[in-house]
Amino acid sequence: MEFTIQQIAAMLGGEIKGESSGKINMLAKIQDAKKGQIAFLSNPKYENFIYTTQATAVIVSKSFVAKKEITSTLILVDDPYLSFTVLLEEYHKLISFQKSGVEEPSYIGSNSVTGNGIYRGAFSYIGNNVKLGDNVKIYPQTFIGDNVLIGNNCIIHAGVKIYAGTRIGNNCVIHSGTVIGSDGFGFAPQPDGTYKTIPQLGNVIIENNITIGGNTVIDCATLFGDSTIIREGVKLDNLIQIAHNVEIGKNTVIAAQAGISGSSKVGENSIIGGQVGIAGHLVIANNTGIGAQSGISKSIKEEGQKIIGYPAFEVSDYFKSYAVFKKLPDLNQRLRDLEKKVYGSNPLTQKSMTSQEAE
Amino acid sequence: MEFTIQQIAAMLGGEIKGESSGKINMLAKIQDAKKGQIAFLSNPKYENFIYTTQATAVIVSKSFVAKKEITSTLILVDDPYLSFTVLLEEYHKLISFQKSGVEEPSYIGSNSVTGNGIYRGAFSYIGNNVKLGDNVKIYPQTFIGDNVLIGNNCIIHAGVKIYAGTRIGNNCVIHSGTVIGSDGFGFAPQPDGTYKTIPQLGNVIIENNITIGGNTVIDCATLFGDSTIIREGVKLDNLIQIAHNVEIGKNTVIAAQAGISGSSKVGENSIIGGQVGIAGHLVIANNTGIGAQSGISKSIKEEGQKIIGYPAFEVSDYFKSYAVFKKLPDLNQRLRDLEKKVYGSNPLTQKSMTSQEAE
Amino acid sequence: MEFTIQQIAAMLGGEIKGESSGKINMLAKIQDAKKGQIAFLSNPKYENFIYTTQATAVIVSKSFVAKKEITSTLILVDDPYLSFTVLLEEYHKLISFQKSGVEEPSYIGSNSVTGNGIYRGAFSYIGNNVKLGDNVKIYPQTFIGDNVLIGNNCIIHAGVKIYAGTRIGNNCVIHSGTVIGSDGFGFAPQPDGTYKTIPQLGNVIIENNITIGGNTVIDCATLFGDSTIIREGVKLDNLIQIAHNVEIGKNTVIAAQAGISGSSKVGENSIIGGQVGIAGHLVIANNTGIGAQSGISKSIKEEGQKIIGYPAFEVSDYFKSYAVFKKLPDLNQRLRDLEKKVYGSNPLTQKSMTSQEAE
Repeated sequence: MEFTIQQIAAMLGGEIKGESSGKINMLAKIQDAKKGQIAFLSNPKYENFIYTTQATAVIVSKSFVAKKEITSTLILVDDPYLSFTVLLEEYHKLISFQKSGVEEPSYIGSNSVTGNGIYRGAFSYIGNNVKLGDNVKIYPQTFIGDNVLIGNNCIIHAGVKIYAGTRIGNNCVIHSGTVIGSDGFGFAPQPDGTYKTIPQLGNVIIENNITIGGNTVIDCATLFGDSTIIREGVKLDNLIQIAHNVEIGKNTVIAAQAGISGSSKVGENSIIGGQVGIAGHLVIANNTGIGAQSGISKSIKEEGQKIIGYPAFEVSDYFKSYAVFKKLPDLNQRLRDLEKKVYGSNPLTQKSMTSQEAE
Repeated sequence: MEFTIQQIAAMLGGEIKGESSGKINMLAKIQDAKKGQIAFLSNPKYENFIYTTQATAVIVSKSFVAKKEITSTLILVDDPYLSFTVLLEEYHKLISFQKSGVEEPSYIGSNSVTGNGIYRGAFSYIGNNVKLGDNVKIYPQTFIGDNVLIGNNCIIHAGVKIYAGTRIGNNCVIHSGTVIGSDGFGFAPQPDGTYKTIPQLGNVIIENNITIGGNTVIDCATLFGDSTIIREGVKLDNLIQIAHNVEIGKNTVIAAQAGISGSSKVGENSIIGGQVGIAGHLVIANNTGIGAQSGISKSIKEEGQKIIGYPAFEVSDYFKSYAVFKKLPDLNQRLRDLEKKVYGSNPLTQKSMTSQEAE
Repeated sequence: MEFTIQQIAAMLGGEIKGESSGKINMLAKIQDAKKGQIAFLSNPKYENFIYTTQATAVIVSKSFVAKKEITSTLILVDDPYLSFTVLLEEYHKLISFQKSGVEEPSYIGSNSVTGNGIYRGAFSYIGNNVKLGDNVKIYPQTFIGDNVLIGNNCIIHAGVKIYAGTRIGNNCVIHSGTVIGSDGFGFAPQPDGTYKTIPQLGNVIIENNITIGGNTVIDCATLFGDSTIIREGVKLDNLIQIAHNVEIGKNTVIAAQAGISGSSKVGENSIIGGQVGIAGHLVIANNTGIGAQSGISKSIKEEGQKIIGYPAFEVSDYFKSYAVFKKLPDLNQRLRDLEKKVYGSNPLTQKSMTSQEAE
């Protein structure tokens, strides 16, 4: 991946000042940049670096006036930071999708079809009747079970395991170690104390534009024809537990190590903090914010709440209660003093906690 | 997998009404069923569907009286829901165990033996001196270290990693990404602030009839000859941490993301909620119920308790305390009012929290 | 791996009493030891076993006086327990590093180089421009992305996934299922409620003498040239979340299922309990101890503190507050009694919680 300064300036709609034929193969910070790299100057704090940098090119504001000589070629734009961000995104897209072709050995079952621009890494496994769209990148050691459908422009990182029957839309990214479609945790207690496994026969549906972090687990739905569903635009972090028959609403973001129990429905545009636990069979309204480590044991019906705690309630109320919690021994002592004052020294009336605390 | 209506009716002890030679290849809900599928009617709410369904066969009660013409073949049984459940279980067993043979490339070390009906998926790795029983299904990309023993009728899903020396009984299912036998977390602090690794030389024993979810980790025991033990009938969910030398008692169920620290012994027939943490070197009595997210820092000696909290205590007591916790600012104000009334306005006697809260 | 008693005695600086040519191939407890094995006697409680053991050799104290005949060869040392520990460590090192050579099929990209004593297990994948030092053991099904550097004497267990650009020092052990270098969880909210992915272009640096458990995830840094850094001597347990741009200080130990949010810096020689959550952009001082399941929402500036809770504060203060928390219904009743006594029965003045609790 190498671009000329001219190509980059054209992409950004910028004006070139200096040598335009230089080749760029990487982006860098202005304080670190070397030959062959492009940097940007936005914050005036970093201006000094532009006079000493070895960067082949630097993106600067059209209004920038140099105080000394600059050896790098300049690309003049309206907003250098924004332009650099555009380059970063383009670069990221390029490196993400650059792998292509089939590395051997890899395995593909019968009746499975793949689109254009596919990458199938070495030791990847694709079962029977699988359909992969265009520009799908299956990294090494990935497992795709029978009858799985994956749309276009998806990246499935090394070692992801996707059970039979899963359906994934377009523009999804799934990070290493994540498991999709494992059995829901369903067991029927028997009179002798053992448990009988309830067959898990549903699947998982991952819609479009979804990102899933590493080592997350999403279980399949229990019944035939039912699905655990991750709606369009959802972003899941690492090590998250999504149980059977859960539905996560559009554009909801869930931070690492949170867990959603079976059959709960989380609304749209919600933000679930890290290590949050949501009990089973609940409904969480749209636009809910749940603070890290909270426990949710009841449905949340009113939209737009911010809650925290175990069980969770309104955030500022929680912190007010917690402020008093930290002073509870003091508060208990104040109460005891007051009891002494009011009741005198009659222990039967006092109900003092002194002895109970000693337990 | 295709069955005739006759085969299915025989399996259920049901009576056929209509064409008996139809072929069935899938189960479905009555509202979704298509040709070649079998459904059931139990709840009268769904009766209308039986007159329009394309299902090849429908399981109905012997007492069912049709109000209109039905094109599907009927199988008459005592309890249609129960009969359908039987079919689901049979179907689940069939698809779970349907894979067989050896896909290439796969790796098997020296002196390793496998029973009848084995499946070894592509890119699975079996070390030296391994012994696998009958009907063991090793999915692709699974790792089985040296000297591992696995009994009969076990399913090891894609990408499971089983370290050397692990022993697994019969009828176990282990889901993708789970790691069994990794080193216990043992380090001896040194005078210079560094840690020396304590060699972890024990193993893991998984008894019979155990199900383990995805991305769970079970560490080996520390000493030679010692084992981390998961007893018969235990069900572990996803993303669980089982540390070195832990023992989980018979028929105990542990929900997702719970963690059991080193050397703790959990009793039989207990239910451990999601995200629970149990400290090290504890003993948890049989029949204990621990609410989600609880922290257990002391042994639980009395059987049959239901506890919650951090640290955990009796469930209804916890919720009574928590109800007051939510009103603590109010309670503090009431105490302050009372102090004012009783002491008058002498600040030295009052010990008011007002200033402390401002901290 | 077989040693003579002479070799072992030389290693321990011990004196042999009895036949010195016996062969030892395993270590065992004195109560379990069989022919070909070596055991030790330290605790007098176990003395009886030395007269009946089938161990080929037993390590005993120089001061040990036998009361009966012993068939095993004795190795006399100053401290039998310490000597046995030395043997355990040597044995552990030997078995850990015993694998060598290249098992096929395995994959190695272009321009990648490996040192002496390398092991590359079957189905392991090494990308382009990778550099592995001496005695690096890459277990089966491991993924090493492009441009990864790994130092000497590292063990990368089965199924570890290391993304492109990661740098790992010497003497590191990484357990199965762990993911290093996955994308940081960064998304910019858009006006229409969707999120735009922020490209994650940094890497992960793992310094020397680091152990990482199974199924842990360490995300890469966000910006070019930035790194998520695990400093020398750190020990990470299983199922831990380390977000983008985090830095973990030297010799810090983190227990299972803890999570460190983006850009937080954890100090040196700290101990972080299991299931702890640390919010983003915090600084945690050196020598901090954080109790299991705690939530940390503010930086910790003073070194050497021991804290717990959600949010966490000083440990003994937490438990004092929690002792009162358990008695809150009682405390509330005492306050109510006092109110009745002081105010009389005027409900307006009383602000009783009775009705509020019924909510």
